[in-house]
Amino acid sequence: MKRKSLEHFNCSWAQAAEAVGDKWSIMIIRDAFYGVKTFSAFVKSIGIAKNILTQRLEHLQKHEIIEKRPVGLGSSRFEYCLTEKGFALFPAIIALGQWGDKWIFGEGKEPLIVVDMESKQPLEQVSVKASDGRKLSLRDITFVAGEGASENTQKTADEISKFW
Amino acid sequence: MKRKSLEHFNCSWAQAAEAVGDKWSIMIIRDAFYGVKTFSAFVKSIGIAKNILTQRLEHLQKHEIIEKRPVGLGSSRFEYCLTEKGFALFPAIIALGQWGDKWIFGEGKEPLIVVDMESKQPLEQVSVKASDGRKLSLRDITFVAGEGASENTQKTADEISKFW
Repeated sequence: MKRKSLEHFNCSWAQAAEAVGDKWSIMIIRDAFYGVKTFSAFVKSIGIAKNILTQRLEHLQKHEIIEKRPVGLGSSRFEYCLTEKGFALFPAIIALGQWGDKWIFGEGKEPLIVVDMESKQPLEQVSVKASDGRKLSLRDITFVAGEGASENTQKTADEISKFW
Repeated sequence: MKRKSLEHFNCSWAQAAEAVGDKWSIMIIRDAFYGVKTFSAFVKSIGIAKNILTQRLEHLQKHEIIEKRPVGLGSSRFEYCLTEKGFALFPAIIALGQWGDKWIFGEGKEPLIVVDMESKQPLEQVSVKASDGRKLSLRDITFVAGEGASENTQKTADEISKFW
């Protein structure tokens, strides 16, 4: 039997992938960043089938990334808003968009530019840094077991450290 | 007819989601970051069905994120390596893992810690910054049409600017 779910992985990427690792979820989160809140506005913006949108919104609610709340006191209409956990995807989503800007559309051909509200200038490229501020590439990092490592994760960390 | 593909979206998030927005692709890229290269090593590490792995590797090759190459001169065995475009996902993938560390496992319960090879210390949290280095939150940014904006994207940018 092969895995269909990543839920039991002792791994932050697996868990994050299980929570937001599908294209419709990424589009819903993008739209929530734009300010989209209602079911019909998501349908219009993404062009997604209603049953898929319902399923994806439920999934994002289960993972506490989106919350459903009445539009106003006593209203029977609902809106879908990012939770604090959903807001916290901000750096990952911006980094993903910058990757698409550069590697899919190319410099000077970006469809939409994210700008700082104050200066109206494009953002700095999101980058990975050491605790002392040095910019790092994939070749400058390695992985060690954390406090929450299972036996298997410990083994993976040991293998990686021998390999790198 | 509702959309099934995001390929025709004039949007970097849609294009990025189409390229890497599924959980198996995220796991394959994670593994490539660890140093995994062969088909059998991906199967073992992810516990993925071989037909899904084949399909996902082909998809990542089509999007030029992974390349397949002979293990050595004249070898009939192959390995799967990140291209420069694949390497460039580094900030997005690190940000996603840090999100999982904090919001799924929680501080002090991380399975695996990414450390800087030089200091052996955990990385800084990936963050979004203005061009002058100010740290920004979602509330500090907005979106403007870029050089590559379609008519629709231009409309979206106008709507967002009124909303924000």
